[in-house]
Amino acid sequence: MKFKQLCLIAVACWLPLSTYAEAPLNPTAAPARPKNIVIMIGDGMGPSYTTAYRYYKDNPDTEEIEQTVFDRLLVGMASTYPANVSGYVTDSAAAATALSTGFKSYNGAISVDVNKRPLTTMLERAKQRGLSTGVAVTCQVNHATPAAFLSHDESRKNYDAIAATYINTDADVILGGGQKYFTQPMRDEFTAKGYQVLTDFSQLDAVSQPKVLGLFADVQLPWSLDEPEVHRLSQLTSKSLELLSQNQQGFVLLVEGSQIDWGGHANDIAAAMGEMDEFAHSIEVVEQFVRNHPDTLMVITADHSTGGLSIGANGKYEWHPEVLHKMTGSPETMAAQAVANEQWREPLSASLGFAIDDELYSKFEVARMQGKKALTTAIKQEIDLRTNTGWTTPGHTGVDVQVFAAGPGSELFIGSQDNTDIANKIISLMPKAKAAK
Amino acid sequence: MKFKQLCLIAVACWLPLSTYAEAPLNPTAAPARPKNIVIMIGDGMGPSYTTAYRYYKDNPDTEEIEQTVFDRLLVGMASTYPANVSGYVTDSAAAATALSTGFKSYNGAISVDVNKRPLTTMLERAKQRGLSTGVAVTCQVNHATPAAFLSHDESRKNYDAIAATYINTDADVILGGGQKYFTQPMRDEFTAKGYQVLTDFSQLDAVSQPKVLGLFADVQLPWSLDEPEVHRLSQLTSKSLELLSQNQQGFVLLVEGSQIDWGGHANDIAAAMGEMDEFAHSIEVVEQFVRNHPDTLMVITADHSTGGLSIGANGKYEWHPEVLHKMTGSPETMAAQAVANEQWREPLSASLGFAIDDELYSKFEVARMQGKKALTTAIKQEIDLRTNTGWTTPGHTGVDVQVFAAGPGSELFIGSQDNTDIANKIISLMPKAKAAK
Ligand SMILES: [Zn+2]
Ligand SMILES: [Zn+2]
Repeated sequence: MKFKQLCLIAVACWLPLSTYAEAPLNPTAAPARPKNIVIMIGDGMGPSYTTAYRYYKDNPDTEEIEQTVFDRLLVGMASTYPANVSGYVTDSAAAATALSTGFKSYNGAISVDVNKRPLTTMLERAKQRGLSTGVAVTCQVNHATPAAFLSHDESRKNYDAIAATYINTDADVILGGGQKYFTQPMRDEFTAKGYQVLTDFSQLDAVSQPKVLGLFADVQLPWSLDEPEVHRLSQLTSKSLELLSQNQQGFVLLVEGSQIDWGGHANDIAAAMGEMDEFAHSIEVVEQFVRNHPDTLMVITADHSTGGLSIGANGKYEWHPEVLHKMTGSPETMAAQAVANEQWREPLSASLGFAIDDELYSKFEVARMQGKKALTTAIKQEIDLRTNTGWTTPGHTGVDVQVFAAGPGSELFIGSQDNTDIANKIISLMPKAKAAK
Repeated sequence: MKFKQLCLIAVACWLPLSTYAEAPLNPTAAPARPKNIVIMIGDGMGPSYTTAYRYYKDNPDTEEIEQTVFDRLLVGMASTYPANVSGYVTDSAAAATALSTGFKSYNGAISVDVNKRPLTTMLERAKQRGLSTGVAVTCQVNHATPAAFLSHDESRKNYDAIAATYINTDADVILGGGQKYFTQPMRDEFTAKGYQVLTDFSQLDAVSQPKVLGLFADVQLPWSLDEPEVHRLSQLTSKSLELLSQNQQGFVLLVEGSQIDWGGHANDIAAAMGEMDEFAHSIEVVEQFVRNHPDTLMVITADHSTGGLSIGANGKYEWHPEVLHKMTGSPETMAAQAVANEQWREPLSASLGFAIDDELYSKFEVARMQGKKALTTAIKQEIDLRTNTGWTTPGHTGVDVQVFAAGPGSELFIGSQDNTDIANKIISLMPKAKAAK
């Protein structure tokens, strides 16, 4: 009796802390082992990205700082280091290999070990157990992260070889960019195997059942910042959930906010926050699915952080995300337009949302003469100055990343863990393979 | 009955996840409300510091990366922004005010609100409830963080005024640096009130009961890196626990690794890691105390991050903490010695642990001619280059910080929270005030 009373106390204390602990209130709602699993990766999304995003989304007219979906779902953190041979700072391939297989490998590895032997991926395990699988990303579908969930290769750079393996993955949903890597004969093979092959985003809406290969750009999808209202990743996520949930056995889906990392590599705070916003929307899509399907586990993390982004720089205790809210597109697109037009000062000023004084005009004009890339850099530097944003590298950094989760099993991700632990926990939660009939 | 069974299931599922959930296994071991509370602040210790520390401590001769005390104790993260009027990036005063009182204030505030009215501090609340209180820090005891736990002032810069209030705090243990702020008449007042007043670190050992004011340096204590074997903060922590635990009602103790922040401000990775190491040792002292006294809650966090530190920089996916292991002191101390001696090349090379080639010699010599500060900077730049460490600012940054906890009540700190929530949770866990007799 005493023991039971103590248990009641313990449960009461946990109640406000997790959706799982609410199970006693509604016992049928949340089984301990999920039927469906959604793993979401914000590529390059280190702690300074999720923090910056909170202030980027803050309504300056209210006293309080509004919570983001990341604040709602945070449960822990993860280390990201690759196999010894690659030191302490990972690339996306080694990190995705860890998250997909539970094993460390070298930078560049696509789900092969340090001896280049294939490692079973999370989506392969799901297939073995009769589950449906899918990937929805904003990069080319054969880029490092989705590749490590679908394929095996000794190098992430072997884009064509990786794409060529996709016909054998039996994945039910493959959505992203990358038309250039899938020749017409390859696409015909997918069609012959029962896939709908899409190349126009507007076709997606009409798809009502798997399988589907959707390649909506030659390489990566456009910056979210240039067409924020389209919500491409949210739509890909929503459609993936709709199609995969038709399997009564369950499914495993990878969603990647791929270009957060690309904003980081470019040291482009505006593009990075635009990608963060679209990734956050996609998380909210999955969060809503979990609310409606309490047998679904969602786990969100990053593969690493990128750029050495800091909120504040140069000795000033300030950060000004409000500068970003006035911008009407990405620095890259603005620079392209300014290079293409002789009358560029007024349109660029309008796109940036601030006046270009004579000194800045001269600086931009010098850069513009050198071309689009130089002007993009000059625009980004001006935005860094005005927002007071710092960067240390065009590459990755080694800081631990956050782990967010909801749904059955989410309590396993509380606290500190390694990225391989995330994979091993998810694999341990998957339904057991059906015995052969 | 059914409800109780479900509760048992829920508790069983939580079992591997927290010390608190283990309570049912040994009901007498961990009461739900702690008797003693230790709050530990790593000043400036953002996520890149704890991550860097893991790799700094890694034994390169083993395949695995060893866990640190931070990995063992991580439970959540916290936002650090100050009151609206100060934007998104906090200073140590506003952050310590939040952690001590549960209220946001402006940068520079020492436990006063935005209208400069005093806010009740955690240590004042503890005193009201009959608990003992103490601070153990490596900065001067009247610096921003300890000041916000002991005092109230409209500005952290009013060092003398803050020191003058300490006689009225009734704190049982005040240990750190800051002799210059306590005149002989002030010290005599402490003595008259029953305090032992110490100025020599060797006197600490003989102290066997409160109250004690220990001022072991004119301003801050020496860099840990210069005398790592002394373990000053660990000793201050250990002695504080010994003295405060004599109160059967319980105690609240603040321990601060103050100079992690100073390493960050100086963009000095070697000094920062040295301070991290001593802070980690101090955490282990408290962790051991919690093991032996399961009625003690420990909560560790940072007030903010400093320097925009990144693990890796300049496009290279590398970080080389092994460079730091060969150093025999802080860059500041090395520079002081090199400036004072004409024969400096060999001794500096020996202290740094790497050869100084002719090119580097010329660079150092130019800096040395300008004095100690310039040479310190040149040495730090060389270390940054060799370790591939990045920085964006000599000031603070806005990234969320981690929260670590163990002991009764520690489960309240799981997940995302604001720094004011940390204070409010701790205050909610304190023993209730005794009714007046
Ligand atoms: Zn990348
Ligand atoms: Zn500071």
